[in-house]
Amino acid sequence: MQEQVTAHPEKETGRLEAFSDGVFAIAITLLVLELKVPDLAVASHSPAQLGRALLQQWPSYVGLVTSFFTILIMWVHHHAILRNVCRTDAWLHFANGCLLLGVTFVPYPTAILASYMETPAAKVAAAFYSGTFVFMAICFYLFIRAAFRKPLLSPSASQEFIGKTCHQYMFGPPAYLLATLGAILDVRLSLAICTILWIFWATTITRNMRA
Amino acid sequence: MQEQVTAHPEKETGRLEAFSDGVFAIAITLLVLELKVPDLAVASHSPAQLGRALLQQWPSYVGLVTSFFTILIMWVHHHAILRNVCRTDAWLHFANGCLLLGVTFVPYPTAILASYMETPAAKVAAAFYSGTFVFMAICFYLFIRAAFRKPLLSPSASQEFIGKTCHQYMFGPPAYLLATLGAILDVRLSLAICTILWIFWATTITRNMRA
Amino acid sequence: MQEQVTAHPEKETGRLEAFSDGVFAIAITLLVLELKVPDLAVASHSPAQLGRALLQQWPSYVGLVTSFFTILIMWVHHHAILRNVCRTDAWLHFANGCLLLGVTFVPYPTAILASYMETPAAKVAAAFYSGTFVFMAICFYLFIRAAFRKPLLSPSASQEFIGKTCHQYMFGPPAYLLATLGAILDVRLSLAICTILWIFWATTITRNMRA
Amino acid sequence: MQEQVTAHPEKETGRLEAFSDGVFAIAITLLVLELKVPDLAVASHSPAQLGRALLQQWPSYVGLVTSFFTILIMWVHHHAILRNVCRTDAWLHFANGCLLLGVTFVPYPTAILASYMETPAAKVAAAFYSGTFVFMAICFYLFIRAAFRKPLLSPSASQEFIGKTCHQYMFGPPAYLLATLGAILDVRLSLAICTILWIFWATTITRNMRA
Repeated sequence: MQEQVTAHPEKETGRLEAFSDGVFAIAITLLVLELKVPDLAVASHSPAQLGRALLQQWPSYVGLVTSFFTILIMWVHHHAILRNVCRTDAWLHFANGCLLLGVTFVPYPTAILASYMETPAAKVAAAFYSGTFVFMAICFYLFIRAAFRKPLLSPSASQEFIGKTCHQYMFGPPAYLLATLGAILDVRLSLAICTILWIFWATTITRNMRA
Repeated sequence: MQEQVTAHPEKETGRLEAFSDGVFAIAITLLVLELKVPDLAVASHSPAQLGRALLQQWPSYVGLVTSFFTILIMWVHHHAILRNVCRTDAWLHFANGCLLLGVTFVPYPTAILASYMETPAAKVAAAFYSGTFVFMAICFYLFIRAAFRKPLLSPSASQEFIGKTCHQYMFGPPAYLLATLGAILDVRLSLAICTILWIFWATTITRNMRA
Repeated sequence: MQEQVTAHPEKETGRLEAFSDGVFAIAITLLVLELKVPDLAVASHSPAQLGRALLQQWPSYVGLVTSFFTILIMWVHHHAILRNVCRTDAWLHFANGCLLLGVTFVPYPTAILASYMETPAAKVAAAFYSGTFVFMAICFYLFIRAAFRKPLLSPSASQEFIGKTCHQYMFGPPAYLLATLGAILDVRLSLAICTILWIFWATTITRNMRA
Repeated sequence: MQEQVTAHPEKETGRLEAFSDGVFAIAITLLVLELKVPDLAVASHSPAQLGRALLQQWPSYVGLVTSFFTILIMWVHHHAILRNVCRTDAWLHFANGCLLLGVTFVPYPTAILASYMETPAAKVAAAFYSGTFVFMAICFYLFIRAAFRKPLLSPSASQEFIGKTCHQYMFGPPAYLLATLGAILDVRLSLAICTILWIFWATTITRNMRA
């Protein structure tokens, strides 16, 4: 009987994780569908022209790699958070749902930014891109508020990890709001803030997981 | 030996859940493929025009969010039901298959509704949309009839959850049939019934899972 | 130590199953991408015309449902076979790979059959469709030959299930070959054989799993 | 308490494997989306013409089968490597991420090679194809360097497997670099090297897993 009590919580987050892993994995794999085989006219099947056509697709490659690692970093955070949780309830399911909605959406603003980067409309594209991450940061904050409640925490939860994470995630929404507003002044300012935050989330999780 | 007997049933629903999670996760992620990067003419690359193009896609955004949470709520129900089940048989596989067929189909009537919402054909689109949920409600009812049979129930199954669920799911098919017939009178009547039911399924599972 | 020995085999097929479940789940969900929102001219947005457009898509609906349940039945067979296996090796991975290649391919001949069913080219489409299942039946036969070897069998493997399955799967390749050759005489003959076999695989697994 | 310590590491790689399995499974299934139903003019619905149209798609079939087994072999390697690992950290997540980025990318150079195989641009296509595998081989090497570190190794890790794998993977990047440079001289030379390496990776894992 005792054993069943300890075994049950394990199972609860198991399916939430499996479902989330599925969504992350598919969102990250669908990115490659954006790449199209260059369709050269029959007359221009020279090696040089195929080479040039492949090189001209560089904004798509950059978009692919950026979206890929953005989603990967979010997955590592999601994974690190749920390691401290062993029970689920409707709020956690809902917060997780909002988060996953954002994850599946990320490739879209990235594609828009890649398409309009070198046009006069770049400001709007950058604001749309940063604005998506305002939404993501709010979702992540709601997610940890839902996950790090007493009745859901796993007995082996690390108080240090929880404290640090709650503190750091609070700065997410205002920082990305700054990037969104910054897009009106200068596209480069907006993208610089996003890049700095991107590096911050990537390195911070490394340090927090070690703790 | 005793332990193997209790360990085996666990494994049985394990793969059914993994497969179903996969289908739910993919169906929910494919929704974003409906969003297309707006293709502005080179002459009109002004910030205002990109902004307007992104805003004009609002029916797609509403469709995405609606389909996303519809599938998510169905997943939470599916998850809550299978927590009470530990064995599978061919009937459960078949009922689950019909349910998953419906899940993969949901984005299609949602897209049709979003496309024809503001045209004279809205009635047919709303009837098609509600009609899909008549099918879904029947599938969910068949699914619980297949799942909540004695030999399949887990020893820790909650009789209260089973009783409430069986009672509530019985009202699903007639309620959605009403919405389908209501579409002939007035599109708004049909969608109002669907929205009320949507909120009902979302809140009811929260309360039932707590029981 | 003893415990580790019994725990390890479990883990081995675990990842093979997870990977296969993923492929089955994605293949079954991608089917819906074939359905396109009917694109009516603005002038013809009448309810009757949308209704007619939706009804005219019936071959796509039949193709979707047929492919869906074909893949589902193959998944149930795959699942029932691997319940008797607890270890993997390179041969099983290879046979499973061929099987999954076939699973991902199934929607393609189904779409071709749906497109050319009512044209003079129906014979070729039906032969291509049945021919795919000759390949699938050979793959399934190789798969059980690889899976049901002594060193891989689980201690709880059912000899009765193994015996029956080996016997029944032997008739698969010649029966589908007959359907392929039958397509030259008459399309309906070919599809009748396929339908009979489809019902056979669906019911036989129900009976074998009960054993 | 003792049991929890041994149970926890198991869980750690569990989610990494589930996520990776998802990416492999989706990448391998998306390949079939490249196949299009041949769109014959109504006038030419004769059996012979559909047959010819299906046969003319052979480069797509070859591309599908090649990509499928390439990804499958990579999955078997990934699976065999992680059997020796029971803990994860940020480096392993990052190396695994690079590897998965490559996996999702593979169908793209394969499609380019299939499209330009019989044109004067074949050299560039073959170099692009082999070049992708230089990247993959480097990723695989980084992955085993990250995975086979003392603190992450499982207690049941096979030193023989680790030694052999580290040795063999070192030859990957230079061998594929040779294939890439060889493409300038002769496309067939480049593809011959790739094919030999493909057979090598397929057979070597069979032998190493047995060890």
